[in-house]
Amino acid sequence: MQTPRTTPSRLAKRAHYDAETIHPILDDALFCTVSYVLDGQPMAIPTAFARKGDKLYIHGSVGSHFIRTIEQGVPVCISVMLADGLVLAKSAFHHSVNYRSVVIFANAEKVVDEAEEMEALALITDHLIPNRWDDLRPTTPSEMRKTTVLAFSLAESSAKLRSGGPNDDEEDLSLPTWAGVIPLKTVRSTPVPAAYSITIPLPGYLQNS
Amino acid sequence: MQTPRTTPSRLAKRAHYDAETIHPILDDALFCTVSYVLDGQPMAIPTAFARKGDKLYIHGSVGSHFIRTIEQGVPVCISVMLADGLVLAKSAFHHSVNYRSVVIFANAEKVVDEAEEMEALALITDHLIPNRWDDLRPTTPSEMRKTTVLAFSLAESSAKLRSGGPNDDEEDLSLPTWAGVIPLKTVRSTPVPAAYSITIPLPGYLQNS
Repeated sequence: MQTPRTTPSRLAKRAHYDAETIHPILDDALFCTVSYVLDGQPMAIPTAFARKGDKLYIHGSVGSHFIRTIEQGVPVCISVMLADGLVLAKSAFHHSVNYRSVVIFANAEKVVDEAEEMEALALITDHLIPNRWDDLRPTTPSEMRKTTVLAFSLAESSAKLRSGGPNDDEEDLSLPTWAGVIPLKTVRSTPVPAAYSITIPLPGYLQNS
Repeated sequence: MQTPRTTPSRLAKRAHYDAETIHPILDDALFCTVSYVLDGQPMAIPTAFARKGDKLYIHGSVGSHFIRTIEQGVPVCISVMLADGLVLAKSAFHHSVNYRSVVIFANAEKVVDEAEEMEALALITDHLIPNRWDDLRPTTPSEMRKTTVLAFSLAESSAKLRSGGPNDDEEDLSLPTWAGVIPLKTVRSTPVPAAYSITIPLPGYLQNS
């Protein structure tokens, strides 16, 4: 949704407010950064998350100072950024980055419904490692008591994107400097078993990691 | 430096305050997230940066609302996070992430010395693309006038790290579920030339991108 605080001051043409743009960015990103204010001081914590519909979930220890601060519903800013490429222009000035980013302004709602809490943990697990949850023993009541799940509305969120090649000045185009894009990608390499897991075959859902 | 706000409430044994730990993390990360407070509201912007000694530099347009806010010296929190691996345990509860993160509490100092400003732009460019700066035409006075460079002291910074395999509960060790680590890495793939750069050979410093 476009509101004053989701409208960028620069390059507003790169901003988007539709779920069709915002949701896939959140689904592609593995981690977000949650920023909040403590005694006037900005604080920022990177964490795992998952999205379902127009809600974003994070989780943490009930003992975490971070969780105990933001579960009170103070304003937070959640940001994710996927770097897709480095954009090399003929001039330093026109160097840029191809990226897909989302910023969400919201207030935490503590999830108290046990079924929603369990579902959120499954979503967060499967967001990082698809199909992992169903391969795990059930989470125990004691583990659940140690865990807080927080939900955030995506109502006030926006995406900002850049793609494509460099935008050089006309007079620089004939310079002999190479210009173009270096694509960036996060890759998963061959899983490394724990010492106590060495005899267990790698499950199918991890084969193409 | 360890201060109350750089001491984590959870897993304090993962925290480090020495330059030998903090500097390499900053040098490996391509982007940071700068969080600040505007009218009580947390804001967060991902951006490129570079480190030299115990200073971190960012740059931006003189017209950027973000830059114009933080150049006034308001408190900021700069965070970087490198995700090195997904840690898969026998239980959902003990799943974790191998990461190297840094949090810096600081206030921007606007760089007014022209030589330092130019050097910071070179450092930021070469941080993303090593050896790029010397291949570029000189930055013009007009481009410099459109650009603000901000410096931040690393005096109040801390790192937090996790590495290694899962830490499962003793009673879960014999479960038939695969456990271990999926390594994560950001890779650069083959550079894609701009249409107007197609006849220019890829320079040596981009060959192993």
